[in-house]
Amino acid sequence: MKKHNFNAGPCILPDVALENTAKAVVDLDGTGLSVLTISHRSKEFDAIIEETKALWRELLNIPENYHILFLGGGASLQFCMVPYNLLQKKAAYLDTGTWASKAIKEAKLFGEVEVVASSSDKNYSYIPKGFNIPTDADYFHITTNNTIYGTEIKEDIDCPVTLVADMSSDIMSRPVDIKKYGLIYGGAQKNVGPAGVTFVIIREDILGKVERQIPTMLNYKTHIDKGSMFNTPPCGAIYTMRETLKWLKGIGGVEKINELNKKKAELLYNAIDNSKMFVGTAEKDSRSIMNVCFVMKPDYKEKEAEFLEFAKNAGMVGIKGHRSVGGFRASIYNALPIESVQALVDCMKEFEKQNA
Amino acid sequence: MKKHNFNAGPCILPDVALENTAKAVVDLDGTGLSVLTISHRSKEFDAIIEETKALWRELLNIPENYHILFLGGGASLQFCMVPYNLLQKKAAYLDTGTWASKAIKEAKLFGEVEVVASSSDKNYSYIPKGFNIPTDADYFHITTNNTIYGTEIKEDIDCPVTLVADMSSDIMSRPVDIKKYGLIYGGAQKNVGPAGVTFVIIREDILGKVERQIPTMLNYKTHIDKGSMFNTPPCGAIYTMRETLKWLKGIGGVEKINELNKKKAELLYNAIDNSKMFVGTAEKDSRSIMNVCFVMKPDYKEKEAEFLEFAKNAGMVGIKGHRSVGGFRASIYNALPIESVQALVDCMKEFEKQNA
Repeated sequence: MKKHNFNAGPCILPDVALENTAKAVVDLDGTGLSVLTISHRSKEFDAIIEETKALWRELLNIPENYHILFLGGGASLQFCMVPYNLLQKKAAYLDTGTWASKAIKEAKLFGEVEVVASSSDKNYSYIPKGFNIPTDADYFHITTNNTIYGTEIKEDIDCPVTLVADMSSDIMSRPVDIKKYGLIYGGAQKNVGPAGVTFVIIREDILGKVERQIPTMLNYKTHIDKGSMFNTPPCGAIYTMRETLKWLKGIGGVEKINELNKKKAELLYNAIDNSKMFVGTAEKDSRSIMNVCFVMKPDYKEKEAEFLEFAKNAGMVGIKGHRSVGGFRASIYNALPIESVQALVDCMKEFEKQNA
Repeated sequence: MKKHNFNAGPCILPDVALENTAKAVVDLDGTGLSVLTISHRSKEFDAIIEETKALWRELLNIPENYHILFLGGGASLQFCMVPYNLLQKKAAYLDTGTWASKAIKEAKLFGEVEVVASSSDKNYSYIPKGFNIPTDADYFHITTNNTIYGTEIKEDIDCPVTLVADMSSDIMSRPVDIKKYGLIYGGAQKNVGPAGVTFVIIREDILGKVERQIPTMLNYKTHIDKGSMFNTPPCGAIYTMRETLKWLKGIGGVEKINELNKKKAELLYNAIDNSKMFVGTAEKDSRSIMNVCFVMKPDYKEKEAEFLEFAKNAGMVGIKGHRSVGGFRASIYNALPIESVQALVDCMKEFEKQNA
């Protein structure tokens, strides 16, 4: 049976990226070596990492004064690297959920943190509006997409101080005005590759303003100076990232994928909004086009486990909601075809027909 | 032409590990999903990571009071994680080369560092002996194998304080008396897998003795408490690690591989010692069985580039020495068959016949 992969991350990747990775694991472009066994200092790997950077630059229109880094440790390590490198006195954070809260917790180890707004009062079901960003903050940190709650900041905000964004779960889903940001980071394992590599897009002039000593590996300058090759990078994950970005470029880039993503989201949100049984958890104007969270209406609450089983039997994978929200979550990242969304919608309608 | 992969890392891995990885990248055990696209919280991935830990425990006979962690960031990140977690007042380090020096540099950010001995006087061509480990040190740090210089501490030393070892390049090459160590770490990309995953073997009671606050991701306790699943682990790299360890178990484990490694090293060192043209750079009693470093004797120095080309044409990959030593380095890790060592020896003899 065909599987429809709605996993929240690691998640679906383009078939061609997986097929090409599998080939390169056995033999990289006829070299007689594997992408996992060539030297990271070889000309072959150098070409891979340079092309990957070039694809980032082209797809997101990243200006020349920004560096693109590929690191290890996940976005969670960035939660402490950001304040280690940038927080001298005070940082401002927007609290939009679990991941934002984790970032805030780390920042507090390094200085004063002002949380400008939080949606914790309604279980993070919306993106706060009308907050003031203190102009004396070293930076302002946002989490653009909140995987667990299905909310998203879908526009590039104007910010009077350095804007830092965790874009783990919506990077490459839409065009981004990079110039508005000082630093963008994220784990690759949603739209840009497999788990094991972290991307950082950084404007170098935001660095050098803190007085503390920074351990070498936690210092962005280290990785900028060495082009992400200070130590051995996660070569295999970078290869799959390149293949994923080549696929994205091939289908038309971020403008095109944004159209497709909007269509997929619309299809699913419409089905939810027109359902007797299901209801969305995020406020409409805060809805994510990457993670669609919904639950059963009160009258059908006891049917949740049954629907999960029903959907599983129809090939749906990964639609159980995070325990913080409950119900269901369909992650509809770049590589998920609209046919999979349609299959889920059909499955929801069929279940409703049988049970409502 | 068959390639003989003498890369220093990333390096040769068992063919079966690569083949199985390639299959799992396309379809993991008939799940219809890829090892790169299943959830790290799925029962399938849970089984993979648990089996990987069990293989570590079995192969190295790791006692129950030690945890086995799989992290990101490389051994270089451990250079700061070790002192962050363990250095309250003073740490002792043995300086055996570039990597040891890098570890020392990071430790100095956290407290007093006593370098008990160094072989920098002879370009790190030997392992210092007869040094005193201060009993008031929080720990003593060693680098068991020095990839660049071809030296190795081949026995588990007795240590009056917590012993911490970077075993990046000789882990699993020989039996280790784990009980003598408080913490062992390393990048996987030599004997145990591809780049992108870092192993840590740690006895929990060495923790909790420093007063500083430790960022969450840099705190070993975080990863112990969550079984390396605090955040998304490098799933693909862990899969290849499991396949590599299964291969090692299949051929007879670390005792068997140690025999084979010794034979490979003996074959190559004998060829060097019996050569008119080549000479080893490491002192004999300090020689590594993983990285064999050698140069041309003074009379033939100008032939080095020519030999590199000659060897390359015979299928030898990665035998150029590190710039710190020059000449040649053959990395003969676990997965390298003795046939490749024989091919290199034949190549050296042929070159000598033609040129000496």
